[in-house]
Formats: sequence, structure tokens, C-alpha cells
Amino acid sequence: MSNINPELRKDPISGRWVIISTARAERPDPPEPRREEETPEARARCPFCYGHEEQTPPEIFTIRKNGEPPNSSGWLTRVVPNKFPAFGIFPEINLRRVGMFQIATGYGAHEVVIESPEHDIYIEHQPPEQVTRIVDTWWERHVDLERDPKLKYVLVFKNHGRAAGASLTHPHAQIIATTVVPDALKVKLSRAKKHYEGGEGCIWCRQIEQLFYYENRIYNPDGSVLVEVYQRDRLVAESDNFIACIPFAARMPYEIHILPKTHQHSFIQTTPEERVELAGILKTVLMKVYKLLGNPPYNFYIHSAPNLSVRPRMGNYMTIKEDFHWHIEILVRTTIWAGFEQGSGIYINPLNPTDAARYLKEIEVDEV
Amino acid sequence: MSNINPELRKDPISGRWVIISTARAERPDPPEPRREEETPEARARCPFCYGHEEQTPPEIFTIRKNGEPPNSSGWLTRVVPNKFPAFGIFPEINLRRVGMFQIATGYGAHEVVIESPEHDIYIEHQPPEQVTRIVDTWWERHVDLERDPKLKYVLVFKNHGRAAGASLTHPHAQIIATTVVPDALKVKLSRAKKHYEGGEGCIWCRQIEQLFYYENRIYNPDGSVLVEVYQRDRLVAESDNFIACIPFAARMPYEIHILPKTHQHSFIQTTPEERVELAGILKTVLMKVYKLLGNPPYNFYIHSAPNLSVRPRMGNYMTIKEDFHWHIEILVRTTIWAGFEQGSGIYINPLNPTDAARYLKEIEVDEV
Repeated sequence: MSNINPELRKDPISGRWVIISTARAERPDPPEPRREEETPEARARCPFCYGHEEQTPPEIFTIRKNGEPPNSSGWLTRVVPNKFPAFGIFPEINLRRVGMFQIATGYGAHEVVIESPEHDIYIEHQPPEQVTRIVDTWWERHVDLERDPKLKYVLVFKNHGRAAGASLTHPHAQIIATTVVPDALKVKLSRAKKHYEGGEGCIWCRQIEQLFYYENRIYNPDGSVLVEVYQRDRLVAESDNFIACIPFAARMPYEIHILPKTHQHSFIQTTPEERVELAGILKTVLMKVYKLLGNPPYNFYIHSAPNLSVRPRMGNYMTIKEDFHWHIEILVRTTIWAGFEQGSGIYINPLNPTDAARYLKEIEVDEV
Repeated sequence: MSNINPELRKDPISGRWVIISTARAERPDPPEPRREEETPEARARCPFCYGHEEQTPPEIFTIRKNGEPPNSSGWLTRVVPNKFPAFGIFPEINLRRVGMFQIATGYGAHEVVIESPEHDIYIEHQPPEQVTRIVDTWWERHVDLERDPKLKYVLVFKNHGRAAGASLTHPHAQIIATTVVPDALKVKLSRAKKHYEGGEGCIWCRQIEQLFYYENRIYNPDGSVLVEVYQRDRLVAESDNFIACIPFAARMPYEIHILPKTHQHSFIQTTPEERVELAGILKTVLMKVYKLLGNPPYNFYIHSAPNLSVRPRMGNYMTIKEDFHWHIEILVRTTIWAGFEQGSGIYINPLNPTDAARYLKEIEVDEV
């Protein structure tokens, strides 16, 4: 299935080129699960554990057992401001010039979502109802932050493992809300709009269709197979309303996208029932990653459309509800983005996406 | 000098926003130099050491002592094809469609520049004449690869340390030549052209002027200093024809750019005398990094204008010789780009660029 000759694949949404270069790649052996090193002192001091609530700023939101007072223990998920915020809520937004440079003060929000009172139980090992609480917590904060029309974009993201940038072991995600639409989104928004205006509808809906209903094989001049595409070849998991797949031009061996099958422009459109299902597929995918790769470091983030309550100022995005399709991108850090990726913006992926999907699909996990 | 309130800085060339958030940053203590772990077996097997020339594909270029035959020992620098190329030289360039996706075969070159016969002496500890040979070797290969008009872009880059993606300890750089202009360059080319067409000349020349001749201080509404800029505040090192500085919107604490003071569009325009000087400033900067941070992992790459021998097909780049200014970008990996950076394309830098420059400037190194 995999090719020895390197191929260049273009991601239709980002426009990014990826080199699929499988000469070195082999199927991983099931490894021993990786453990994060942590001193007993660091563990005892953890500001996200029960009894240490006073070590964080006062809570913004919690899901609690009945009758517990705020900022006490007894919570099931807990959201607090980041103690070292990249953004604080300042009274003014100021765009200034310093000679040829632009500078702005950092109006915005930076929150921490503590996923569970348990210090080292991660999403894949949590019971489904707790994963649903985590997803519901992201949703509640996302909805609330969009009430501030100055905040154009809300980004939920997670770093798992020190090598992926997590500075604390206790499982948590983060939410940053900004007054600018981030560059990574601008690229997607502009490509999605162009695709839509070209009469071809939502570019993610088309990709889902292609994944389910398309087969093709393309040959090299010497008769060898350049690329083979068959139905569901990049599918990792599926539920009634969601799919998890490896994108055609994945930047890393285990880049996994989760998206709703039916068009929705924002994560905030999900119903409570859909979030139960989303929690299930997220748990399934992360358990497959855990079992295949042994608790590797990873990052994920949710890409929704920008805050539509600021729509009057967003003339560029008139068709956004139709052209943008929200999704989660998981990047499992089995490779390092080095000088070539930084210098070129082109990514080298040593594993064919079809093979990556097959390895993950074959990992059995309990039904949730 | 540094600010506690986070600032957003916009890089004028990439258009990228960077958050300078210094709440957590402190001046580093001079650390013990970091050593790469390597087994005696791996070291004994190293394919880049003298006597192992047959373990690599046949050499493309060497600088040798007089009279040594090719592919024998006795070389001072040596260039060989990458054994696991991301690109190979294929007979055809093919752009094909697979449903909605685009795919191309990987025409191009992927070479390894072995910097020295010495297994663990890095640039900063090499004698100046050897660093000049390394820089000359990059130059020779860059010039030669541009003779192929199908190769639109030549990228010289280096990964130092395993955490920065180096898979072998023996010091080496890599060169990739591609049939597409990489995305990272397209963004710079288009912004540089726009700046030039706006009548303001080369955007890098203007930045050099601002660094040398501009001072300003901007206050917050509460009277505290938002940002202070003074002459040479971000300068790290300087020679007659080159400067090394921290950019205004640095993505990482120790992002360092080296560029010629006088406008040149490509590294291939440098004279032999200028390359002696460039080798000197590169050695100086890397020695400062080594002393301040203790042999940290880093990446660097050279950004030149694309191959102008394909100019007839590059109508977009008519003013490129005037608007693009070649430079080296060094990224010292003291921070991890995590879910926020990946999901937003915005970077969080915990150290004020002025402070970073000052720390490096104060490190004394021998004159070269």
C-alpha cells in the first residue's frame, strides 16, 4: 500500500504541501506506556488537585456534585484563569506603531480547564460520563466567551505530555480568546470561502464524501502504483454523527481529525446528545493512540468559525455558516518539526496516511 | 526594560502575531553544557567519520587536502546525497489529481553537508578557517543546484541536537531543492514585494535602519511603559558587512537573524571575502548561544530569493532582486511550540527580545 517513491500531497484547505516519504517508516511495535517523570514533591504540590483550590485564581466555572460551595473540593471539572496568562483582560484594546512595527496590548482571556480531580487519569482512561463533562465544560466556556463581542476567536486546545508543551502533569486543557482571528484560521477561512464561492459547497463535506464514496488508483510511468485510494481508507473511527480520520496530506504520521458528518460551522452548535457522542469518539481515538504508541505526547485543538456575534465587522465572512465546518485536529508528536519544516512550511511525513489509519483501526478498544 | 503586561507584536514580513509574555521568564543561569547521549557502538558506526566513506552514497562535492582521491578519507567538508531522501531526482515532474486532491512526484534534491571529519566538534568550536569552508560548501552546492532550472528553490538548513530533529550526532547540514517555492517563502516574497511597490524599498533594509537609528518609548494609559526602543537594542553582534539581531516579533526567546547590511537578494551573491566574515559572525553567535544556554538544540536555515534562472516563469517576482534581502534565521529550541501555536499560528514568547539580545551581547567570546 505504501510507496517507496516520495509523493508531494497538497492539503486542499491549508494549501500546504506535505512530502509523504515512507522509506524509513515501519509499523511501530506496541511499546511500554510512557510515563511522565514527576517528583513526589511536585505531585504533592499540584495546584489542580483537591484541597489546593486556593492555589489557583478563583474559579470561573465548575461542574460539581450537588451542594458543594464554590472554590471548595468536590468538583468534577473546574475552570480557572491561567496564573501566567498570555492575555489578560485589559480595559482597552490599543493598536500602536513603534516606527515600522505594530504593537497591541493583549486583551483577551486565557483559562485552564482542569479535566478531573484525578492527578494522572487521562481522557482515554476516564469513564464516558466524565469525558462528556470535559467536552461540556469546553462548550460552556466557549459559549460564554463569545458573549464578549470584542473576542473574535475562541480556541480550545490541549497539550498532553511535557514533550508536547504541558508544564503540569494533572490533565487539563486551555482556552484562549483573542481580539484577532488567528493566522492559522484566516488561511482556512479564505480557502473555505473560495471553495464555496466556486459552487462546490463546504470543502470539509466534500472531503467526507470522498472518504466514503471514492476509489482510484494512479500509476507511475514505470507501472508501479503512485497512489491508491479506496473507500474509508483513511477512516480511524466512526459514530452516527462523527468521523475520525487521517487527512490526505497529514503533516505527521498520526495527525487525526474528528469532525461532524453533517455540516456545522461551530462546536457551539453541538447538542448535548452530540457531545455525548463526541466524547465517545474522542475517548476511542485517544485510547487507540495510547495502545498503539504507548501514551505519546500530543496536542489537539478545536477549529470553529470565528465569533459570529461580531459579524457586522466580519464582512469577509458572509457565507461562513455554510462554508466553514468545525473540527478537532490531533497531532501526536512522534516526529520533530525541524529546520526544513520551519524554513519551508512544507512538512515531511514518514508514514502513508492509509497505513496510519489502518494501524489505528486495527487496535481494538471497548465500545463506549 | 521588560513588560509584565503581555504585548502583541506583529512581524512586518510574515504578518505573524507574537505574544511577548514575560511573566514567567528569568535570566538563565549559565548551565552545564548539554551532551547528546550516544552509545559507543553508534559512535563507532558513524557513517560521516573518516574511513566510513563507503557507507554513504558517492560524494557530490568535497573540499579536500591536496591530492586525495574522491570517496577516500582526507576531506575537510563532504557533500553526499541523503540516504533517505525526501526528494529524489526523478525523470518527470507530474502533477496529478486524485479526486479533489492534488499529488505530485517528488522531483528535487536532498543532500547532506558533512561539516568536518570530527565527530563532535560543532561550528562554534571549529577554527574560523573551517567555518569558512562550511559556508563555502553551502555556497558551492547552492550555486550548482540553481543550474537546474526545474529547481525553483534551494534551502540550506541545519538541525543541531536530537530535540531539534538531528538523527545523527556528527555535525552536518542539509540542502533540499524543490520544484515549488515553499509556502514559508511565498508569504515573505509577497509581503516584501508589497512593501517595495508601496515605495518604501526593501523591508529588511528598513528594519536594519530602524535598529540602528531609531528610538521611541510608548506608554500605557496608566503611565507605565508599554514598549521602549533604543538604538541597537536588539543587536547581538556586528561586523563590517553583517549584523546578527533578535527580530522585533521573535517567535522564541532566542530567535536570531543574521543578514548582510547592504542589500543582496541571495546568499549566492556573497563574495569569498564576505563569506569569511559571515563564517566569523555565525561562529560568534553560536558561541554566545553555547555559553549562555549550554549547547541547546537549535535549527537554522538560509532564506534567499528563489532561483532566478527560472525567471521567465516567475512573473510575480519582477522586482525580486530589489525587494528580497537574504538572511539566516536561527531558532534555539528553549520553548516548545504546543497546541496554541499549532492551532492559531500565533506564537507565545516568554522573553522580551531586547532582554534576549542583551543577555547574548554581554557574553564575551574571542574575536575571530
